This record gives sequence, C-alpha cells and structure tokens, in this order.
Amino acid sequence: MSRVRVAAFSVSLDGFGAGRRQDLNNPLGVRGTELHGWFFQTEVFKKMHGQSGGKLGVDNDVATQSFENVGGWILGRNMFGPVRGPWKDESWKGWWGANPPYHTPVFVLTHHVRAPLVMEGGTTFYFVTDGIESALRQAKEAAGDRDVRIGGGVSTIRQYMAAGLIDEMHLAFAPVLLGEGEHLFNGMNLHDFGFAPFKTTMGENAMHVFLRK
Amino acid sequence: MSRVRVAAFSVSLDGFGAGRRQDLNNPLGVRGTELHGWFFQTEVFKKMHGQSGGKLGVDNDVATQSFENVGGWILGRNMFGPVRGPWKDESWKGWWGANPPYHTPVFVLTHHVRAPLVMEGGTTFYFVTDGIESALRQAKEAAGDRDVRIGGGVSTIRQYMAAGLIDEMHLAFAPVLLGEGEHLFNGMNLHDFGFAPFKTTMGENAMHVFLRK
Repeated sequence: MSRVRVAAFSVSLDGFGAGRRQDLNNPLGVRGTELHGWFFQTEVFKKMHGQSGGKLGVDNDVATQSFENVGGWILGRNMFGPVRGPWKDESWKGWWGANPPYHTPVFVLTHHVRAPLVMEGGTTFYFVTDGIESALRQAKEAAGDRDVRIGGGVSTIRQYMAAGLIDEMHLAFAPVLLGEGEHLFNGMNLHDFGFAPFKTTMGENAMHVFLRK
Repeated sequence: MSRVRVAAFSVSLDGFGAGRRQDLNNPLGVRGTELHGWFFQTEVFKKMHGQSGGKLGVDNDVATQSFENVGGWILGRNMFGPVRGPWKDESWKGWWGANPPYHTPVFVLTHHVRAPLVMEGGTTFYFVTDGIESALRQAKEAAGDRDVRIGGGVSTIRQYMAAGLIDEMHLAFAPVLLGEGEHLFNGMNLHDFGFAPFKTTMGENAMHVFLRK
C-alpha cells in the first residue's frame, strides 16, 4: 500500500533538523552537515555521488531502505535551493548536479511559477504553487502503488505533520547539539498527532526511530 | 578529579525529561516512566530494588557507571517528593523507602526549612534553602575527591546548566514521544554553553550521549 513517509531525516539531540542561515555555502544551514555524518559515511551515499567505498552496516541498511519503493518526492523550496522570491532565470537546477538522487518526479513547493525541469536519471522537478495538498495529490498520482517521500526540509515536514498527512516517519537522531536552527518538534505534539515509535534500530552513528500513526 | 555531573538522565525524542502533572501517583509525571524503560530492565536497577534478574549489556553498564564514584547528590524538591509549600510534618521521606539508592549525603533544594533526615544505607537528606550554589558547595565538600551527581529533575538540571556549573552530562535518549512535559532544552543553547558530545554508546533500549564542556 502506498504510504506518505519521511525517511532517514536527521535530527539533532536538541531537536533541530537544519542549522540556521541556509545559503549557497550552507545548504543545510550552519553546522547542518553534522546532522548527516551517519549518512555521509555509508556506501549508499557514496554510490549516489559516484564514489566507491563507504561503510556497510545498520546505518547503510536503513539509508538504503529509505530510497526503496519511493515513486514520488516532495521537497520544500529551500531544500531545492537557496534562491528566494521569484525565479530570476532557469539557471538554478537544484543542489545535486545533472543527475539528482531522486530518479522519480519531484514536486517542489514554491509560491513562484516555473516550468518543469527534466534532469538526467529520471528526475523531473515540478514546481507546485497551489499548496501542500495539491503537491501530495500529484505525488501520489505519480507514485501509484509506491510511496511518496516527503524529503524536507523542516518547514515542509512540519506543514505535512500539522495537516495530518504523514503516515510514517523514520527519524535519525544524531549525537550532535546544534543549539539553534530549524526545530522539528517545537510547538508540535507528535504524540497528540497520533505518532508512536514502532521500531528502533541502533545504528553505528545514529539512533533510527520509526514512527507510525 | 571531582566532577559535577548529570548521569543516566532520560530524555524523550522530543526533548522532555519528565511528563506533565507530577503527583503521588505519577512521580515522573504522566507517562514519565516510559522514559526510563531502558533503565528499569537492567540488572543494576533490579538490584537497587532488592530484585534478582534484570538484563546485562550496554544499558546496564552505563547505568552502573552512573552510580560509580559519586560522593554527593543534589535533587530538586519535586524529585524528592510531591509535597509543595512548607513541610507540614516529617512524614514524607522520599519516594524510595527506608533505604534510598543514594548511599551518600543528598542535598535537596527547597524554599522551606527542614531538619536533616537520616535514612538507612548511608543516605542523609539535607534540605538546602539558600540556593543552588550553596547546595553545590555542600555537596562538593561531602564528595571530596568523588563526583557530585545532579540527579534532577529537569528544572534543577536547567538551573545548574544555566549557571554554568555542570561539567559533564550523560543523557539517555529513549525512543519515546511524550508530546508534553518538562523540556530539558527549550530556550537553552547547550552548544553555546560549551557542551559537545565526546562519546556516544548505543544501548539496547536507549542512545547514551556523553557531553562535556
């Protein structure tokens, strides 16, 4: 059955899913990369970036699973890029180069119209200007029997959580203190939303908690 | 060297160190006991409560270490008991029965004067009415070369953190969503306070992160 899920989303000990001040030099915000140390070391991450090597093990297994059976992605605009306001031109094509790691339709939430962007490897970015429900409807249609993965960032996940539209979340708790940044939980009561952990897997460098409604 | 430390302090995924509404029936607040599932299963916990059995392993090891080399404890009043306001009588002697699991002098922060309370097994509760620095001074004197352990609860730890008086913290992140309760981090920037993880140990039922300044 098709699920709407968040997967392999890294969170700091103090609850931040990204650092502050995202920009071209800090796609994940200041110190945001530290959240993803567990992932950057895995074989699956290295492969995605055309490198060999990388670690096998629990972290690699859950990261691999996070990409399986995904038929459509949803990203917030800030996860797509550092550009703010109207698209000045078509030059920004995402953080990931010519062949992004999605290989499915990707629906990017934005307030500013832009034509679809066909990339190598099966990724097409569609820019959705009529809200999160519309993006989800389109992603579900694209995904068919497969899952829709809400990629992030924090603001996008929070919007879908608050709207009750997420079925499952795999959060990777990294042993990092950010101190400030974008908080995933503040002002949200995930327990009241009906989420509860149904599986916990201790990785080499993160604790992986799987939550379901 | 004597250190001031927090040890084996359980925190939920969403950052709560206790549930809401502590009372006689919920010493740890509503659902607070869920935070300590990893600890309740250990051999060291069972032994402390005169029971046999219990699990060995990583969780048991770090729980055991949390009690080692401790020469004095500091507790907030709510961790000592559910009584609020002036002590009506001397009948409340803590949650732990005649032989509490401290076996050292224990300094209880309170606004209300009370005579020291000598328990079995080497525990004496001293009621400190002149503030956290005074309690720490007395605990350090009692501990000598050994460590002072700040037992909790959340409010007590936050006060000592904010005052810059804690050297080391071992937090046990439990795969539990509380949704509400007493938050350990909110409004506090532990990174700015100088804390950073120096060791992470994956337990059977919690992720143990050791922070140091």
